[in-house]
Amino acid sequence: MTKVLAVNAGSSSLKFQLLEMPEAEVLASGIVERIGLDNGIFTLKNNGEKNTVTLDIPDHHVAVDLVLKGLVEHRVVEQLDEIVAAGHRVVHGGEYFTESAFCSEEAISRVEELADLAPLHNPANLIGYRAFKKALPEATHIFAFDTAFHQTMEEDVFMYALPYEYYTDLKVRRYGAHGISHEYVAHRTAELMEKENNGLNLITLHLGNGASLSAVQDGICKNTSMGFTPLAGVIMGTRTGDLDPAIVTYLMRKLDISAEEVLDIFNKKSGMAGISGLSSDARDIEQGIEDGNERAILTRRMYAQRILEYVGAYAMQLGKVDALVFTAGLGENDAGTREAILDVLEVGLGVKYDKELNNKTRGVEQKISTEDSAVEVWIVPTNEELVIAQDAYRIHNEIK
Amino acid sequence: MTKVLAVNAGSSSLKFQLLEMPEAEVLASGIVERIGLDNGIFTLKNNGEKNTVTLDIPDHHVAVDLVLKGLVEHRVVEQLDEIVAAGHRVVHGGEYFTESAFCSEEAISRVEELADLAPLHNPANLIGYRAFKKALPEATHIFAFDTAFHQTMEEDVFMYALPYEYYTDLKVRRYGAHGISHEYVAHRTAELMEKENNGLNLITLHLGNGASLSAVQDGICKNTSMGFTPLAGVIMGTRTGDLDPAIVTYLMRKLDISAEEVLDIFNKKSGMAGISGLSSDARDIEQGIEDGNERAILTRRMYAQRILEYVGAYAMQLGKVDALVFTAGLGENDAGTREAILDVLEVGLGVKYDKELNNKTRGVEQKISTEDSAVEVWIVPTNEELVIAQDAYRIHNEIK
Repeated sequence: MTKVLAVNAGSSSLKFQLLEMPEAEVLASGIVERIGLDNGIFTLKNNGEKNTVTLDIPDHHVAVDLVLKGLVEHRVVEQLDEIVAAGHRVVHGGEYFTESAFCSEEAISRVEELADLAPLHNPANLIGYRAFKKALPEATHIFAFDTAFHQTMEEDVFMYALPYEYYTDLKVRRYGAHGISHEYVAHRTAELMEKENNGLNLITLHLGNGASLSAVQDGICKNTSMGFTPLAGVIMGTRTGDLDPAIVTYLMRKLDISAEEVLDIFNKKSGMAGISGLSSDARDIEQGIEDGNERAILTRRMYAQRILEYVGAYAMQLGKVDALVFTAGLGENDAGTREAILDVLEVGLGVKYDKELNNKTRGVEQKISTEDSAVEVWIVPTNEELVIAQDAYRIHNEIK
Repeated sequence: MTKVLAVNAGSSSLKFQLLEMPEAEVLASGIVERIGLDNGIFTLKNNGEKNTVTLDIPDHHVAVDLVLKGLVEHRVVEQLDEIVAAGHRVVHGGEYFTESAFCSEEAISRVEELADLAPLHNPANLIGYRAFKKALPEATHIFAFDTAFHQTMEEDVFMYALPYEYYTDLKVRRYGAHGISHEYVAHRTAELMEKENNGLNLITLHLGNGASLSAVQDGICKNTSMGFTPLAGVIMGTRTGDLDPAIVTYLMRKLDISAEEVLDIFNKKSGMAGISGLSSDARDIEQGIEDGNERAILTRRMYAQRILEYVGAYAMQLGKVDALVFTAGLGENDAGTREAILDVLEVGLGVKYDKELNNKTRGVEQKISTEDSAVEVWIVPTNEELVIAQDAYRIHNEIK
């Protein structure tokens, strides 16, 4: 009975999945929400059942106790020592971490140090780790980094044209994000295509509320659209994506607001929500398009155009493209968004796909390109928890 | 004897060319520098001779008098009324101007209004216009706009994913720059290829100290790399080009400087100068590469990589590319920069070129691609003065 936890801790939430390894069977999953706020919510799913409890959850230690007690109560585990390892998602691994790492004192202090680059995320990730470490002191704990997969980008790709010392002294460079997801779907797509990673050129499109694209060659990342932060790249639910940085000072002057306020607007009131004026949710954009709302139509067109530009850039860098891979919320479930993207790529990339198959595919592995397409098109649901659990299981076995 | 002036007025300088039209023969050219500063310099070239005078030039009216007296003294013109028209370059035409325009009261007030979008340039352009208008009251004066050529971009290309009212109320969108140059070389390349503009897909690379790329289809602009301001796009001499806008607030905090100071660094201390630590001049980068300087080598690689990304994006948008066109300082004269760009485009675009021919071509019209290249590659020296003079001559004839 070798059980492994995959944990994603935020400042007020804690998501988890418990897997039986190496079979990778999901035994239970759940989320604790509103930690530190009134009316916390604990949801546990196992055996096709979903249990929700509402109660005050003052901190992450209480949240972790809830989770572990819940697993015992629902007989997912008999005893807690069946959980031999836990993998903790960490948003920023900087240049230190090129792969998942055992939670040594050194690794912990590196993650702390990197809070400067991810002030909202790394500290919350560490709080989650510490709570689980206290509750499961004998288990092997590891960190899995959302930047690690992108560390194979070369210098000419990840550097900005800034004074060089901003890189050496202030660590300003492209890091990317969603690395665990890009890695999972890239490698999974190779399996589905029955090809080796070696020699395969993929463009992975992680399109959720946040969104990023990666160029993957021989199984490793060559480029990705998020930058120093997750603000950069393609258009997102509420984030601008790429923007002329001179707009910051122009808006400060015209609106008489601070740079922080401008950046807050770029992060929270822009993207699909800003253009459409409707919502950050692609389903509302879809409804707007059906209603003939011009700004909803523009939103969809802009969304596809920016992705076209990145696909073009990555196709030029890779030389040839074997497959496009859609994943995450919109990528897996939103046929309209996929259609808009694939339609603008037909001329330049020679993409052809089965519209009906695209329309009916939601959240399952499916090739939707037709035989005469120059490039295969796949829908591959992401599974970050699996990658985290596999890494935890591997490192556990290595050090035992 | 129909002579037309093409004028490019800056805040402390005034460049001009006098052409015989419609033959487009250049009769004289020159520049007045350090207007309003000590030791102004007036340079006049005609008949293969170059005359330079140093004297105090307190304002643009004095500068214009110098130019016109110089033209008479050197017998380029007998009388000033031979100059029937003058075209004045204006940096920002906003959305009002989709082509060159007669300097009506309305046009003048539009250019004044647009100073908000180009505070360093439009006012200086107007000062130059007013000085010439006073000295040549009977001539036809027109404005030629550096943004006009880009006004054919569609909404999904020129809009940013910001709150929509920033476009309608604050005019924030992609405008581009170097439009007169992109227009000239695109249309000239069609002539050189003996093709119609219609049906031709070009990517024009204006690579000077400022640099931008355009995607040109059927002779009109479909996309361009500069954005709301000339900071955006590819790497330049001292400008960053594209950048995660969140870097603004990070640097403000780490360096304890204002947003304006950060933008000043992005504009003046970044780009090739910032990465290399050597210089903003591509010749110094070339020397650094020859000396084995690693940061010079990185600078060249990054420069080429960013251009690859734009060429890829535009190739995907255009569907196919018939030719790449190099122009402006580096594009016309810097064989090393062209080589670095063309080499990274070989795999993705099928570019093949004659390295020896590339090496020896400087500042002349030349096709450097070989017959087996998938895309033609041209060097076409830009000639913005010709476009300005032609537009002035055309409008002069239309209204007379």
